[in-house]
Amino acid sequence: MKQNIIAIDVMGGDNAPYETIKGSIDAINENKDIKLILVGKEDIINQELQKYQYNKEQLIVQNATQVIETTESPTSAIREKKDSSIVVGLKLLKEEKAKAFVSAGSTGALLTGATVIIKRIKGVERPALATLIPNANNGYTFLIDSGANMDCKPSYLPNFAKMGKIYMENIMKINNPKVAIVNVGSEKEKGDTFTKEAYELLEQTKNINFVGNIEGREIPAGEADIVVCDGFVGNVILKLSEGIVKTFSQVVKKEITSNILYSIGGVLSKGAFKNIKKKFDYAEVGGAPFLGLKSLVVKAHGSSNAKAIKSAINQCYKFIESDIATKIENAILEDNNL
Amino acid sequence: MKQNIIAIDVMGGDNAPYETIKGSIDAINENKDIKLILVGKEDIINQELQKYQYNKEQLIVQNATQVIETTESPTSAIREKKDSSIVVGLKLLKEEKAKAFVSAGSTGALLTGATVIIKRIKGVERPALATLIPNANNGYTFLIDSGANMDCKPSYLPNFAKMGKIYMENIMKINNPKVAIVNVGSEKEKGDTFTKEAYELLEQTKNINFVGNIEGREIPAGEADIVVCDGFVGNVILKLSEGIVKTFSQVVKKEITSNILYSIGGVLSKGAFKNIKKKFDYAEVGGAPFLGLKSLVVKAHGSSNAKAIKSAINQCYKFIESDIATKIENAILEDNNL
Repeated sequence: MKQNIIAIDVMGGDNAPYETIKGSIDAINENKDIKLILVGKEDIINQELQKYQYNKEQLIVQNATQVIETTESPTSAIREKKDSSIVVGLKLLKEEKAKAFVSAGSTGALLTGATVIIKRIKGVERPALATLIPNANNGYTFLIDSGANMDCKPSYLPNFAKMGKIYMENIMKINNPKVAIVNVGSEKEKGDTFTKEAYELLEQTKNINFVGNIEGREIPAGEADIVVCDGFVGNVILKLSEGIVKTFSQVVKKEITSNILYSIGGVLSKGAFKNIKKKFDYAEVGGAPFLGLKSLVVKAHGSSNAKAIKSAINQCYKFIESDIATKIENAILEDNNL
Repeated sequence: MKQNIIAIDVMGGDNAPYETIKGSIDAINENKDIKLILVGKEDIINQELQKYQYNKEQLIVQNATQVIETTESPTSAIREKKDSSIVVGLKLLKEEKAKAFVSAGSTGALLTGATVIIKRIKGVERPALATLIPNANNGYTFLIDSGANMDCKPSYLPNFAKMGKIYMENIMKINNPKVAIVNVGSEKEKGDTFTKEAYELLEQTKNINFVGNIEGREIPAGEADIVVCDGFVGNVILKLSEGIVKTFSQVVKKEITSNILYSIGGVLSKGAFKNIKKKFDYAEVGGAPFLGLKSLVVKAHGSSNAKAIKSAINQCYKFIESDIATKIENAILEDNNL
């Protein structure tokens, strides 16, 4: 099997296919070790590719005539649209023609497709979407599950924590990362039924550094490296974080430009705001891997621009280099004596 | 019954009793129409009161020898600590010696105590904690339930929405406020079991302007006036919002002071940041009322300073003036044909 080949769903996401193709070209032009398979409607892709200069050996096009929309039911879409960019891309991964698959399309369809086509690691009840969110502690917090599983069972969370640990140690180089569960108070007895049960299980989980509950207000400060929760709650956390940063930036801009003195101040301190923007820019992070699958499937943000797609590709390259999928699988199998 | 008498739990919260007493004095010194009953250990209160100048006719002290800690089980604390500031304060309300009760103490104990002593409005299954959170749309979003009920049932939410509507119309002067339910996507079929069921019920609820799902990222923009959800999710939203604003402010400050040019810019635009801080300052909002009780019980933030306590008292004054508790009760009874 060839190394570093990444398949890209060119049809998924709000800015597909143009930004997706641009991000793909930027990625290969910056890194000669990456090879890409662009999956989607080949006539559109080939036409778009004429705009760019790139090394032809780093890129091939794989035709897929259908597109799964985010409004479609994931299960029936995967079953019925066999020639969709998601199904075709996942099959490339399954057949080991690619080492990773990136899509900015429907999260539900990607998850359903991946579970059916790629399969779960033995011992993992459900794969989770794991997203790095920026924190003030000059780093990132790994939020698991950030939206794959609605109505999570408490028993899913120990594996979320274990898989997150291996990722944080290998990719983010954080030794013995602190794992916390999202809750409404710091005391063990707080929370809803789900959280109380999951707390008990996490306490008994070997080989993780479980530090207990984390409240909403402590997450942005970076008080834990890995934050586990139900996928509904995680998705709200992820999107609310994005929304507040965006809204706050707009308010700052509006206030700064509201009078001439503030505007001059704003111009002088522009560099500071550029640094802040970079720190909280979700496009810098790249995509979110589904943890718990036998191969690497990465969900890029639905509104990904070229930069976000490029980041997701670069992230996949790092994943492949560190062989993270195999490390996670081995660790889970070992822990569960499978 | 005398008008505008508000009972204050002087022993609850991180900054009790000193900041609570200071905030109380500030409130009566600014508004001659407010009368307060300070509930707590009278020797401590009387000693502290010697520091201040105020009109003695606006303030009385009610001794309560016990304090309920946030770590205690709410049910047993309410049962066993009959002379706690929370139980004594709620009894003043029950006996109509006060028109409202404000506490920065244990949310659970306050809710349990209020449900037992004050009782619910007929037809309301559970009271909800309703918090105004700042939004960019130059106003506030009413977040219900923001932490009273863990494991909410879908059937609670229509009443949360109805009560929130009356509050927003009467206190915030927003006509026909938009009601949305927190979810992970905009389509009706998205979400967990709880949210799907609650969506169906809200759709069928008369007299509310239900606009469907709201995603985390749309909340700070103020795309709905009332946002309903399970109390666990609401509490995470509330605390995460606070945390991000706090963290973001710290990062801005750090970046601005990181070099001399940025610092000069920061000084020039200081006024802009003061405006922003005011806009996102939770101490400006005051407390969060429990909606669904027969009298007015307001939860102040656990970390309330004097300013937040004063805001909560001023808010109660507004509530009493507009007779919001009666209006909510009448509307619920009418809607349910009780």
